[in-house]
Amino acid sequence: MPVKFADRMATVHRSFIREILKVTEDPSIISFAGGLPNPELFPVSDLEAAAVKVMEETGPQSMQYSTTEGFQPLRQYIADRYKEKKGIDVDADEILITSGSQQCLDLLGKVFLNAGDNVLIERPGYLGAIQSFSIFQANFLTVGLENDGPDLSELEKVLDENEIKMFYAVTNFQNPSGLTYSPEKRKGVAEILSGRDIIFVEDDPYGELRFMGDFHKPVVRGFLEENGILLGSFSKVAAPGFRLGWMVCPGDIRDKMIIAKQASDLHTSTFAQRVIHRYVTDFSLDDHIEKIRERYGNQREVMVKSIEEYFPAEVKVTRPEGGMFLWVTLPEGMSSMDLFDEAIKNKVAFVPGRPFYVDGTGENTFRLNFSNSDEARIVEGIKRLGAGIKDFLAN
Amino acid sequence: MPVKFADRMATVHRSFIREILKVTEDPSIISFAGGLPNPELFPVSDLEAAAVKVMEETGPQSMQYSTTEGFQPLRQYIADRYKEKKGIDVDADEILITSGSQQCLDLLGKVFLNAGDNVLIERPGYLGAIQSFSIFQANFLTVGLENDGPDLSELEKVLDENEIKMFYAVTNFQNPSGLTYSPEKRKGVAEILSGRDIIFVEDDPYGELRFMGDFHKPVVRGFLEENGILLGSFSKVAAPGFRLGWMVCPGDIRDKMIIAKQASDLHTSTFAQRVIHRYVTDFSLDDHIEKIRERYGNQREVMVKSIEEYFPAEVKVTRPEGGMFLWVTLPEGMSSMDLFDEAIKNKVAFVPGRPFYVDGTGENTFRLNFSNSDEARIVEGIKRLGAGIKDFLAN
Repeated sequence: MPVKFADRMATVHRSFIREILKVTEDPSIISFAGGLPNPELFPVSDLEAAAVKVMEETGPQSMQYSTTEGFQPLRQYIADRYKEKKGIDVDADEILITSGSQQCLDLLGKVFLNAGDNVLIERPGYLGAIQSFSIFQANFLTVGLENDGPDLSELEKVLDENEIKMFYAVTNFQNPSGLTYSPEKRKGVAEILSGRDIIFVEDDPYGELRFMGDFHKPVVRGFLEENGILLGSFSKVAAPGFRLGWMVCPGDIRDKMIIAKQASDLHTSTFAQRVIHRYVTDFSLDDHIEKIRERYGNQREVMVKSIEEYFPAEVKVTRPEGGMFLWVTLPEGMSSMDLFDEAIKNKVAFVPGRPFYVDGTGENTFRLNFSNSDEARIVEGIKRLGAGIKDFLAN
Repeated sequence: MPVKFADRMATVHRSFIREILKVTEDPSIISFAGGLPNPELFPVSDLEAAAVKVMEETGPQSMQYSTTEGFQPLRQYIADRYKEKKGIDVDADEILITSGSQQCLDLLGKVFLNAGDNVLIERPGYLGAIQSFSIFQANFLTVGLENDGPDLSELEKVLDENEIKMFYAVTNFQNPSGLTYSPEKRKGVAEILSGRDIIFVEDDPYGELRFMGDFHKPVVRGFLEENGILLGSFSKVAAPGFRLGWMVCPGDIRDKMIIAKQASDLHTSTFAQRVIHRYVTDFSLDDHIEKIRERYGNQREVMVKSIEEYFPAEVKVTRPEGGMFLWVTLPEGMSSMDLFDEAIKNKVAFVPGRPFYVDGTGENTFRLNFSNSDEARIVEGIKRLGAGIKDFLAN
């Protein structure tokens, strides 16, 4: 008998990036395609010590079912850290621990989106969010990113002309573009959103990975008083394999999120929550993040320098002050999909930009990851890619 | 500004059981209300050894992002165990590792259910499934459970008279009733389903916890050839706090499940998957399950005996050969909700049956958990409850 799937599955496809990553598994290919943190920097021995301590001190409890909202001491730690690092007030009871911040996107879709609801995202936008919201049959609208954040006049126009349910933004070192909202743009976004009946979702997995320049307050609670939801993750500052993220939201929203999470997976791993809590309590997360900043900062520096040396001048590249990605724009009319095929022949890979554009534009853009390659491979890979681009421009 | 939630959230409420569990947190109350495995039986030191080995042998890999389908050696182990224990053929590529088997229910909803689709469940039915499918706005139909499985003539009638998308069943030691499908009923269900365009979902978290009697083949692949999906979990045989479950489904369905899972949480904890795989490889899961069977078997025996001693004869109780629950039926016209209030005064708790009935019946039923109380507390608790029931019958 043929199986009938739900309508929502008709428009959602396997992640294009995951398909690309399969091509790049060949070890002779230098891949800037992935979005992985550098595993050499995972604090393995400290996490091992934390895991052993959790097992020995609270063994059975650490393996039992637990509350949907998450381990209270971990929520308190996150709340305290917001105060210390970002200067914003968050109550531990406003935090929901999730199975990675990807789950936040799923819960947002569940709790807020009816089929056909308008969701505003950045152009280019984060692919994981596009996937999650697509499952809930969102209709996407976009606002273009400038070097210091969204185009505010375009933002105001799209909000004036459409009934928007939610605006999803990655305000620090955005995936894929690497761009960060300036304080002026943060203030501007908050002013435009203020008084409108729109949920603003601020996703911030990379904010702590700043190599230079100043930290900025989040839009949510830093500039925007109401209807703001803030997402966070331990994936980029500790390790992604534990699948630990969180969502900060006002009480009435959090109550609905808890219901949606109960139905989704009951709760996030008790053990993972306790191990990460033990780790951040017994060791210095700040010292660890400093190591990541130094290493990624060097890798970013080498990639930027190599691009200046090997890419033709007509190719534009962002210069992010943190995060894991650079964003490349080829001359108008060129296709990064076609370049990808060329590049693979040259044994180097990246992610073509088109999947990050829900409107079908972005053909001439692509994303480069610098967190997961050592400096020598970055130099060699950028050299190969530069040669490929030059050949490509010549034809 | 008031926040507008999605329509799907209007009919889903916080788990009633979780609300009840709050009442029963008072340590002077003997609670048979929860559905927790006994934490004294979690293999803490073996899991600690497994975790340390994973960290030391494959530290960085065990903490990195990984594939959505799950850790291949773990999927292979599960496939092999199906062959060995149940005599059915499952390919490792047909298995998707999930964040607890609750996530399977969410993915089933995502992949199969349009709003208003008919889902058939057992009467009484599993609350977690009711919650998950409610998020996808399922319309529930029910089939009554007899002592050896569903009423087959009712099953045939409901399938003939309605367009059913999915039939969800817990075939071994069902939650909440403790009932198990006999081989005859399994065969009957398969015959009735065969040739119909219906997804049959067989959830089996408790099947290995059999204290007496014979194991039966699952309906899926044991009796039913097509459109069957089998769910499993490590929560009841190892520990629930790792949130590790799985789904067995044919390739075309699994492809859609992978898309839905990517959008839901990318993948299940790499670390948890590797620790559980190391645990089942280095230690004997069979020996461990044997310990659980012995302990739960004794607790079940004590509860059944105490009920025979302390409950009035007009109260009926199931006599399951495994699992974690007994199911009690009061004389017609009595309300277990009212009895609950009485029982709390007597410092003993259970879960009233009504939430397990989507049709509003079941008022005179309730669920007793025997896995998470020691024998002395079971005797004392059943004595208190029996006294309460007698008072209640007298009024």
